[in-house]
Amino acid sequence: MRFYGHWRSLATYRVRVAINLKGIDVEVMPIDLLGKEHLGEHYHSINPQGLLPALDVGSGPALFQSMAIIEYIDDMFPNPPLLPSDPLGKARVRALAQIIAADSHPLMVPRVRNYLTEELGLDADGVQKWIHRFVMPALETCEEILTANSTSSLYCYGDTPGLADIFLASHVIGAGFFKCDLSKLPRVLQIYENCSKLEAFAKAHPLKQPGAPTSI
Amino acid sequence: MRFYGHWRSLATYRVRVAINLKGIDVEVMPIDLLGKEHLGEHYHSINPQGLLPALDVGSGPALFQSMAIIEYIDDMFPNPPLLPSDPLGKARVRALAQIIAADSHPLMVPRVRNYLTEELGLDADGVQKWIHRFVMPALETCEEILTANSTSSLYCYGDTPGLADIFLASHVIGAGFFKCDLSKLPRVLQIYENCSKLEAFAKAHPLKQPGAPTSI
Repeated sequence: MRFYGHWRSLATYRVRVAINLKGIDVEVMPIDLLGKEHLGEHYHSINPQGLLPALDVGSGPALFQSMAIIEYIDDMFPNPPLLPSDPLGKARVRALAQIIAADSHPLMVPRVRNYLTEELGLDADGVQKWIHRFVMPALETCEEILTANSTSSLYCYGDTPGLADIFLASHVIGAGFFKCDLSKLPRVLQIYENCSKLEAFAKAHPLKQPGAPTSI
Repeated sequence: MRFYGHWRSLATYRVRVAINLKGIDVEVMPIDLLGKEHLGEHYHSINPQGLLPALDVGSGPALFQSMAIIEYIDDMFPNPPLLPSDPLGKARVRALAQIIAADSHPLMVPRVRNYLTEELGLDADGVQKWIHRFVMPALETCEEILTANSTSSLYCYGDTPGLADIFLASHVIGAGFFKCDLSKLPRVLQIYENCSKLEAFAKAHPLKQPGAPTSI
């Protein structure tokens, strides 16, 4: 399988963690996000949406969208499972992931930040305020749910890492890139710390990838 | 099951279509989105994220996030299926839904529009331009994929309506609310038309719900 991504992309990070947790061999195909290679003709032929990551599984067009790719990986390589086996557990894990994937992360991506600065003339403080406005409520909701929910333990759901942890970790890292203060979210930070102790998460970190700087 | 939603909410519409397709009986619990009831204490106790919809299935906290709820409904009420049975098919359908759920719809929701007008001072034209910028690329990508993909037929995937159609239809309706011109997206419009011929979609339309106006 060929895995197209970039060190800076948090959606790429999510799939990288899943690949690591499953112990799958993939051929890494770097796409230069900062050089806008993802917007070029070559990558368009791989993913018409022009977003990272994509996974070419050797059968038809490459897969894209991090959540769809991770669920595919989980279907094809069932051990260790990234979702609970019961429908209710699945729904709770998917909902946590979607709080981040659908309601928060899309507000902080480069094309949105570029529109804010280039079209609306926001300065760095304005962008920071925007990101804070749309990143913090999602993580605060996760904190509340993870604190109240008896199904959460070492990780978002039980004592094994899964889909929700992957999305939560990607958002904690993203919030860190933008200096958001997460000190009032101890449950989120504890789960992120538990994830970070696992090699699958640690070695997937954006700043551990080839070409990445040591800090942002 | 108790289904919390509002006529104007496109995420509520998605779940309403799934409920209709499955022929499930639910108790509808209207939450007044326009009166900000979703931000109050009562609804917070149902969904701490304060977003619509939510589905109380009578076991633990209510479910939320439209995609997680729809997959739960599909798990619990398998007929007719809303996803293909094979992992690759599932991934393609989920990816189409995520293009809308994760990369486009979150940019047009009330809290974002309110920030644009109240904090950044955009006028109606500015908001319209913003929405056009973030709605059209998602639908254009869907058009390209649905035109190129041999697995798309009457609907997004094959000849039965499913998860991707539900999300596509919600976004076509949303684009219509903001007068986006979809005339160059014939495949998207054709699939939306095919969906609209089905009672499950037609009677779920936001403007067909109690309390809704006849047009926006």
